[in-house]
Amino acid sequence: MRLNTNYGKLVDSYLFSAVSKKVESFRQSHPEADIISLGIGDVTLPLAKAVTSAMHNAVDELSGAATFKGYSPEAGYDFLRDAAQGYYALKGVDLDLCEIFISDGAKSDCGNILDIFGANNNVLIPNPVYPVYVDTNIMRGTNVRYSNGGVNNNFLPVPRDTDSSGAVDIIYLCSPNNPTGAVYDRLQLKQWVDYAIANQAIILFDAAYEAFVSDDNLPSSIYQIDGAKECAIEFCSFSKTAGFTGVRCGYTVVPQSLNFDGISVNKLWGRRQSTKFNGVSYITQKGAAAALSPEGLKQIKDNLRYYKNNASLIANTLTRLGVWYTGGTHSPYIWLKCPNNMKSWDFFDLLLQKTNVVGTPGEGFGANGEGFFRLTAFGNHENVAKAMQRIERMLS
Amino acid sequence: MRLNTNYGKLVDSYLFSAVSKKVESFRQSHPEADIISLGIGDVTLPLAKAVTSAMHNAVDELSGAATFKGYSPEAGYDFLRDAAQGYYALKGVDLDLCEIFISDGAKSDCGNILDIFGANNNVLIPNPVYPVYVDTNIMRGTNVRYSNGGVNNNFLPVPRDTDSSGAVDIIYLCSPNNPTGAVYDRLQLKQWVDYAIANQAIILFDAAYEAFVSDDNLPSSIYQIDGAKECAIEFCSFSKTAGFTGVRCGYTVVPQSLNFDGISVNKLWGRRQSTKFNGVSYITQKGAAAALSPEGLKQIKDNLRYYKNNASLIANTLTRLGVWYTGGTHSPYIWLKCPNNMKSWDFFDLLLQKTNVVGTPGEGFGANGEGFFRLTAFGNHENVAKAMQRIERMLS
Repeated sequence: MRLNTNYGKLVDSYLFSAVSKKVESFRQSHPEADIISLGIGDVTLPLAKAVTSAMHNAVDELSGAATFKGYSPEAGYDFLRDAAQGYYALKGVDLDLCEIFISDGAKSDCGNILDIFGANNNVLIPNPVYPVYVDTNIMRGTNVRYSNGGVNNNFLPVPRDTDSSGAVDIIYLCSPNNPTGAVYDRLQLKQWVDYAIANQAIILFDAAYEAFVSDDNLPSSIYQIDGAKECAIEFCSFSKTAGFTGVRCGYTVVPQSLNFDGISVNKLWGRRQSTKFNGVSYITQKGAAAALSPEGLKQIKDNLRYYKNNASLIANTLTRLGVWYTGGTHSPYIWLKCPNNMKSWDFFDLLLQKTNVVGTPGEGFGANGEGFFRLTAFGNHENVAKAMQRIERMLS
Repeated sequence: MRLNTNYGKLVDSYLFSAVSKKVESFRQSHPEADIISLGIGDVTLPLAKAVTSAMHNAVDELSGAATFKGYSPEAGYDFLRDAAQGYYALKGVDLDLCEIFISDGAKSDCGNILDIFGANNNVLIPNPVYPVYVDTNIMRGTNVRYSNGGVNNNFLPVPRDTDSSGAVDIIYLCSPNNPTGAVYDRLQLKQWVDYAIANQAIILFDAAYEAFVSDDNLPSSIYQIDGAKECAIEFCSFSKTAGFTGVRCGYTVVPQSLNFDGISVNKLWGRRQSTKFNGVSYITQKGAAAALSPEGLKQIKDNLRYYKNNASLIANTLTRLGVWYTGGTHSPYIWLKCPNNMKSWDFFDLLLQKTNVVGTPGEGFGANGEGFFRLTAFGNHENVAKAMQRIERMLS
């Protein structure tokens, strides 16, 4: 029996466990310290009432003989695909129901999508970025190159910022970005769409943070860019939109006009999902549909506003201090340049010791993250305010 | 961009859509017919009270600020892994918590497990069987051979029943079997374990129907066989046990003692899941744990008894009629030889026309299923009784 030898090429990530260990050790030596974490990448506010009410109803349906539901359609119930279609219509994007595949989350789909592509593709991944893109490609055995983010391009690499020339087949984009919080504008995304079409490449667009975009001039879907339906798949999530990190629901859009060698990518993904996946919990799907109802959208926006207030507070503090950063406006993430050219982990130690505030060293998101640092807006507002006062005192 | 060309080798299955079309056409030409389906592969009874009560509580927790839960551990909450560990202890099987991986269902895991193995393995799959095994292997590009089921071995192939000699790396087993309902005894499973160890092969044991086994002398887990922890992965499901087909929860057991080339398969699967999966809904996990509680197990057994009564009724009718069959005792499936050496689809047509009863042609589960027919016990009891009276009248 032969194992997949690509797994041996994975580099273990110790980012979050190293953070935990350092915090725990500090806590033991400073039991009196009021430690505040701005490193949380997870939502903290409870589910919206519209959502939990729909979920209670769904549980009741499953407990009644006449209303019980068995297997769901693998690509999701039409009531949820309808709701997602309506959500896209609000962005001016027309989708056919068969282009929307409901799943247990964007992370699963981001990894599983590689099943339908050959292992011999050349893949372009931003650096720094969410580590799952690189790890899943290593597992698949593709050839990975990087598009380089940095201060020069505000961590929004465009085609000219790639490592070297040569064939590109699969292009990952994440906007609003994790970890940098940076958001592509229409012209930048148009460059990527044109580049993908010219190279007969496919764009995998991670839109998990789209709900944080509150400027209609900024794209919150790649399908707002001409030509994208001929070259892009988009991953969407209820995790950050509706607080579903622990509930698990997302959806992936695969346009019918996306074809390679005369083969429909939509049909391939449908075949993958109907063979290796069996749909999402009815309860979850009912909750997700309620999140996209008019009442649900209103309630969800209250939660998003809470997180965005935190982000503003962090961003405004950094602006006053003259610290370089991206994000903080259309994103829950703030990505700052460590003061005095410090390295990521040195700044982590300094911040923990001097202010008892915990963040995430940027180096953990890729080599280009060295010297940068991620703060997140998912915490309690009073704690964020306290943390900012301490950071302002330290850096003034 | 290169697609995964293996997808082009998949054969489209028209089994269930062909069944639906024939039934619909019959219904239109016979609007008065009282059609009864014994083709359902899905549960029909509502969730147990213990389960829905736990789910309501979990929804309430997610709606409160102090009790909200975000990301779950990728391999599941310990409370559910504990419950699964306790369920195995009832079978006399000791598992470590880290050997239990909670997932969104056995179907996902059965397909995804191939990620951690090389594409150059030789795979042995029973014929006939659940079509997902073959399709996921075609997608992965492995070399598939068959172990042949038939009347001679009661559709329980052992190592000598394989297509031809040659290296075998991965061996699929499903017991109680879908579609045949046949259950391996200890001696037969021991043959497979010995064969796997002798060939340095791995067994993928699908135990989705284990809860239907009610004879302690029959194995309901491969780990009841000596040596299995050195060669087998087991897939478990709440779908048929607790009626979770629409709720989605399963778990996969990967023993720590399962190693190839000095590499821990448990660690590889853990890495796969933490990279490409993000855990199961908290609500679902709470419901699943309640299903394995003493109260939940009692309630679930009531549902299983209902289905098993249906199965007995079908089996007893066939016995009286002298029709050859497997299953019906420790399984919701009954697999019968079509009378008068009829072909599967011919018997389907005859049964529909003469009795208005719908079943599933065995040919759809593999070439060796030709001439056989599957009936299922998931229907309403009164309808099953009516269907059996009609079949008895037809075949007497």
